[in-house]
Amino acid sequence: MEDTLTLPYAAAQAKAPTKRIPVAVLGATGSVGQRFVQLLDGHPWFKLHEVVASERSAGKPYGEAADWRLDTVMPDDAAALPVKPLGVELKSRLVFSGLDSAVAGEAEDDYANRGCVVVSNSRNHRMDSDVPLLIPEINADHIGAVERQQKRRGGRGYIVTNPNCSVVGLALAIAPIERLYGIEAIHVTTMQAISGAGYNGVASYAIIDNVIPYIGGGEEGKIESEPRKILGRFEKDQFIDAPFRISAQVNRVPTIDGHLMTISLGLRDRNFVNVEQVREAIDNFRGEPQHLRLPSAPRKPLHYVDGDDRPQPRLDRDREQGMSVSVGRLRPCPLLDLRMVALVHNTIRGAAGAAILNAELLEAKGLL
Amino acid sequence: MEDTLTLPYAAAQAKAPTKRIPVAVLGATGSVGQRFVQLLDGHPWFKLHEVVASERSAGKPYGEAADWRLDTVMPDDAAALPVKPLGVELKSRLVFSGLDSAVAGEAEDDYANRGCVVVSNSRNHRMDSDVPLLIPEINADHIGAVERQQKRRGGRGYIVTNPNCSVVGLALAIAPIERLYGIEAIHVTTMQAISGAGYNGVASYAIIDNVIPYIGGGEEGKIESEPRKILGRFEKDQFIDAPFRISAQVNRVPTIDGHLMTISLGLRDRNFVNVEQVREAIDNFRGEPQHLRLPSAPRKPLHYVDGDDRPQPRLDRDREQGMSVSVGRLRPCPLLDLRMVALVHNTIRGAAGAAILNAELLEAKGLL
Amino acid sequence: MEDTLTLPYAAAQAKAPTKRIPVAVLGATGSVGQRFVQLLDGHPWFKLHEVVASERSAGKPYGEAADWRLDTVMPDDAAALPVKPLGVELKSRLVFSGLDSAVAGEAEDDYANRGCVVVSNSRNHRMDSDVPLLIPEINADHIGAVERQQKRRGGRGYIVTNPNCSVVGLALAIAPIERLYGIEAIHVTTMQAISGAGYNGVASYAIIDNVIPYIGGGEEGKIESEPRKILGRFEKDQFIDAPFRISAQVNRVPTIDGHLMTISLGLRDRNFVNVEQVREAIDNFRGEPQHLRLPSAPRKPLHYVDGDDRPQPRLDRDREQGMSVSVGRLRPCPLLDLRMVALVHNTIRGAAGAAILNAELLEAKGLL
Amino acid sequence: MEDTLTLPYAAAQAKAPTKRIPVAVLGATGSVGQRFVQLLDGHPWFKLHEVVASERSAGKPYGEAADWRLDTVMPDDAAALPVKPLGVELKSRLVFSGLDSAVAGEAEDDYANRGCVVVSNSRNHRMDSDVPLLIPEINADHIGAVERQQKRRGGRGYIVTNPNCSVVGLALAIAPIERLYGIEAIHVTTMQAISGAGYNGVASYAIIDNVIPYIGGGEEGKIESEPRKILGRFEKDQFIDAPFRISAQVNRVPTIDGHLMTISLGLRDRNFVNVEQVREAIDNFRGEPQHLRLPSAPRKPLHYVDGDDRPQPRLDRDREQGMSVSVGRLRPCPLLDLRMVALVHNTIRGAAGAAILNAELLEAKGLL
Repeated sequence: MEDTLTLPYAAAQAKAPTKRIPVAVLGATGSVGQRFVQLLDGHPWFKLHEVVASERSAGKPYGEAADWRLDTVMPDDAAALPVKPLGVELKSRLVFSGLDSAVAGEAEDDYANRGCVVVSNSRNHRMDSDVPLLIPEINADHIGAVERQQKRRGGRGYIVTNPNCSVVGLALAIAPIERLYGIEAIHVTTMQAISGAGYNGVASYAIIDNVIPYIGGGEEGKIESEPRKILGRFEKDQFIDAPFRISAQVNRVPTIDGHLMTISLGLRDRNFVNVEQVREAIDNFRGEPQHLRLPSAPRKPLHYVDGDDRPQPRLDRDREQGMSVSVGRLRPCPLLDLRMVALVHNTIRGAAGAAILNAELLEAKGLL
Repeated sequence: MEDTLTLPYAAAQAKAPTKRIPVAVLGATGSVGQRFVQLLDGHPWFKLHEVVASERSAGKPYGEAADWRLDTVMPDDAAALPVKPLGVELKSRLVFSGLDSAVAGEAEDDYANRGCVVVSNSRNHRMDSDVPLLIPEINADHIGAVERQQKRRGGRGYIVTNPNCSVVGLALAIAPIERLYGIEAIHVTTMQAISGAGYNGVASYAIIDNVIPYIGGGEEGKIESEPRKILGRFEKDQFIDAPFRISAQVNRVPTIDGHLMTISLGLRDRNFVNVEQVREAIDNFRGEPQHLRLPSAPRKPLHYVDGDDRPQPRLDRDREQGMSVSVGRLRPCPLLDLRMVALVHNTIRGAAGAAILNAELLEAKGLL
Repeated sequence: MEDTLTLPYAAAQAKAPTKRIPVAVLGATGSVGQRFVQLLDGHPWFKLHEVVASERSAGKPYGEAADWRLDTVMPDDAAALPVKPLGVELKSRLVFSGLDSAVAGEAEDDYANRGCVVVSNSRNHRMDSDVPLLIPEINADHIGAVERQQKRRGGRGYIVTNPNCSVVGLALAIAPIERLYGIEAIHVTTMQAISGAGYNGVASYAIIDNVIPYIGGGEEGKIESEPRKILGRFEKDQFIDAPFRISAQVNRVPTIDGHLMTISLGLRDRNFVNVEQVREAIDNFRGEPQHLRLPSAPRKPLHYVDGDDRPQPRLDRDREQGMSVSVGRLRPCPLLDLRMVALVHNTIRGAAGAAILNAELLEAKGLL
Repeated sequence: MEDTLTLPYAAAQAKAPTKRIPVAVLGATGSVGQRFVQLLDGHPWFKLHEVVASERSAGKPYGEAADWRLDTVMPDDAAALPVKPLGVELKSRLVFSGLDSAVAGEAEDDYANRGCVVVSNSRNHRMDSDVPLLIPEINADHIGAVERQQKRRGGRGYIVTNPNCSVVGLALAIAPIERLYGIEAIHVTTMQAISGAGYNGVASYAIIDNVIPYIGGGEEGKIESEPRKILGRFEKDQFIDAPFRISAQVNRVPTIDGHLMTISLGLRDRNFVNVEQVREAIDNFRGEPQHLRLPSAPRKPLHYVDGDDRPQPRLDRDREQGMSVSVGRLRPCPLLDLRMVALVHNTIRGAAGAAILNAELLEAKGLL
């Protein structure tokens, strides 16, 4: 148990706000919510002011209401905060949502309509036609949709979302290749960690000495649709999907953290593929968070890892405090054009860390 | 620890030999060799007479030489056999080989040249132009190559082989589809059990809470080539490969036994695909071992398993004593045409059990 | 997935009932209930006639109501049985109970008062002053208490129980030593499998790469009290506890099945301890089930396993179809007198199998 | 993969050396050696100057010779160092030894005789009559033996050792109780992580879904003897063992890092035991490293962890960067007097971190 887990704040040089911005976390007692609380501890721009959970927890101090399961100590400040019930008026304008999808849809709309900036990890609004589905290294310009959304809501509030945990890994891994050659087809098989299902999501009797070739909640559908929005364009107030097709087959494996995936890609400019050039494009890939030096931005969003047998979840998931995606085994595919292996820390870069980076982008762009 | 593990002998009704045929096992102390010894115990046609291992073990009783790791008791008869050194003259004509590929190539040739029938699980001779690579449900007619091989060797001896453990699962799973529609392209990602690497093949420090996206020994290459021979034709003394292309991406996962794989298939007659018809073709698939009622033949070589989340290694690997392949999640593929999940018990149907079934076919066909 | 799992019926030669006795299973959809259904399939004396579960399942066929998690196929006969609600009048006099302890106390009393013979795996009535807590190899004479219990209930009905899963292993392992030397003190640390908590009892996020030094439901208290009743005497209508004291420290470890425990014993006749003699006493231990040749009786209730590193859960739990306890590493203790390691299959000999053996004893003694 | 793992240097305020002391690591490519290299990176007092391994690695750069298995990046400085062969003359006087016990005995003597200060993690010299077996929080005064050892060697060189990994946890956990009440008897059962056996020490096939009730190399003997020296006295140039007796039963479980143990204690002043007082004594325990504010000293060497089910390896092993031992479940023992659960990070506080703390003590005491 380390005392704290910090995102790579040291490198941050974006213009900091003059004082730390107060934030609320919705669904603060759940597994994503706990990650928000952990990662916000010591954040240079944001300060946790409010924790929100279900009626059942409301009124208790957070330290009592949350069944803390992370391997760092619960921050003292957070432990002392009283849990507020979902729906209550918040003092913070910036609101992180780790709500369960059963309630997230309505609750997030509600807060956005009241003027809050809701930075959500939930799936409900990801595909809405005026809600950005952000990976700031790829589609920072999609925040242009916020304006249209604010109009619809008739106020200053809005929602931005980050993708499904596996999609973050997939979309980042293929982004430099899409830019180089264009992508037509994606075949991906995931091997996903148990933490992706929440603390009680997968029974040990179900998964030890086993693999489950299925994940509920429409996981395959998300992986087959979200990357097309993310890597698509935002033009004339419209999202236009990228034109590739995706086939996703998902599996739950007995790892704690870190979604690993095998990827095959069919390219548009398939006659000019140069593996060495692709490898360099992956390792040299940078985006807005790096240019803006956002506090939670990894130095490199993609690390190309050498070695026939890498990346591996336990060895590579914590690269740059879990904010970098690792890629390896890039080689030609006998069927499509290129294949490779990618790894994303599903509860950091794939969830709470992604949302925090999104919020930093909003602040840097003057949208908070 | 059960007293013994028997293959489904009860159903056997092929004409039995008048007395049990004496057999030898090469590499008997290794992990595949131990499975041979286990599965031959109580076999109605074959009787273990000789165990062969390296010089180091030679002379010791098998019970002392073998570091027995299976969860049934070592058969008393086997324990008492003296281990013979590789290369020694054998009294048995029928020889099972579980030799390491480092020595199998030469040793198997040597015994075949001396007149033995070598039924091998090793990879060395699988792709030889006159050596059958057998899955009796699929290509029993490939044993026609034996005659040409005997001529080359100038005697009665010959080698037959069974495929790589993952290939057994893949080839059986796609065989009925190949017959229905023809296959053009196969995309497969495997999640393979640690027993596939032998008892000491994967360190626990390497695989607990982890996945390794790589398997040595040319695993991907075997999966990309062997099915083409197996599902190909044997005509005019020649093997002619099936025309499909395969892309295989392999992973080691922390399961004890059972290789699981996600499969996508591109079909030749893609316009007429009927998922329900395919499902029935899988579940109704039968072959020579079923028609001949060979002692180790499963009643059904393929079981279609209902349920969104099946097959699973721990729940389905022992179906029909590990001799059946389980298939599930058959559905259209957004990229190719069909996709599904398959599971094979890698050390039974994928190794020693496969070789024993091959030997039973040879006996039933009068080739011993 | 094997077709069925049978207890060692082959050896059974006790006088069989003229026709199979109809039985009911209470809590049939739970994890212990499923084991009952599995183990009763093909039982030579008993035939499953009724399955009972909560209101929620009532009316559905068992095949639909039960979320079957065992690695053998659900018996067809069982699948077709309609689930009856708890409390309903039963046609079977013999009733197996795998009820959750939250409801078992009252429900079992109720059926016993109505004239049923309730053979229970639940903890509620184990320590009652007229309820036998049976391990037939140790205390078959405790069924004498049934008479007193019948008087109390004013009818033919009664309850008998089997011990906590860890206690079955502990009590059997020490029984021959108690007879040889007398036991004064027992120190035991258990490492218990996840199946002991039911299918959803332990979250994978809680136990992979981990050990939990605690088990709820008063586990340590049961281990510290039940063996004293089991190894005590039944005299003059009274249970008199054995005089030893026990300290139990329990742990949950990431194994599927099989509770392993380290045991240290302080003896009354400590000056005469002969390790070799103890080892033989363990391996030669037999009891009523062996003398009566009950259908589910293992040939040997205790197996002494040689080898510095045995017994081990995965290698030894299935010995004699899970009905035997394995013991190893017997050696002097620097603190007390003797120490050793024991292993019990927690869901077979430690639960459903134990209850079935108890019912067989009752039948053989004319108490059904 | 984090960029580095640092021990809690921030708090260090002991008088630092004027410039960083050059050090060598023996057995640098092994698992303990890699931990030395990792933990020395960025150490405020010590600077890695030389890496020593077997002939086979000699001459290669460390980055090539070492099969790095830790989840932080190999330090660039270390990667560039050429590996020197064991036996070569070293420039560093301070030498850390992570040598295998097969060679450590002679090699460490050799370097000490040549004038080096050998701070060893190997077992060979731990029980020598003039070699301190140090846990600086407990027996810092044992370094008095160094003087006698230097005389024997006829020079300035000497050896100090740290205990076996489990012993570090046991000795620290009981030290405050020994001081309060005196200890007469210790019963300990360990559940040890696979990393304790080195990277390839435990095959995955041997340990997944399993527990092995045995650890080679005399593990139980070490746990039964080393604590008596550590908690004993050094008087008149002699080590006098503490008078308690220990019974240790060891198990290997499928955890990556962190040895958990259940402990029962018989006390000398058993009539005055106050559980609350013991708990406070554990949590308030401090020693020389804390008083001297050594760079690697944890703020608290012992953390008492509340909660029925704590400590747990995965949640508690990294407390204070792996340098603190966690204790929980303190309660009376029905057999002896007190019982509890303790946890130590076996490769940090139980190995390389322990040795580094020992070296810091030597420097602070002017012995380098």
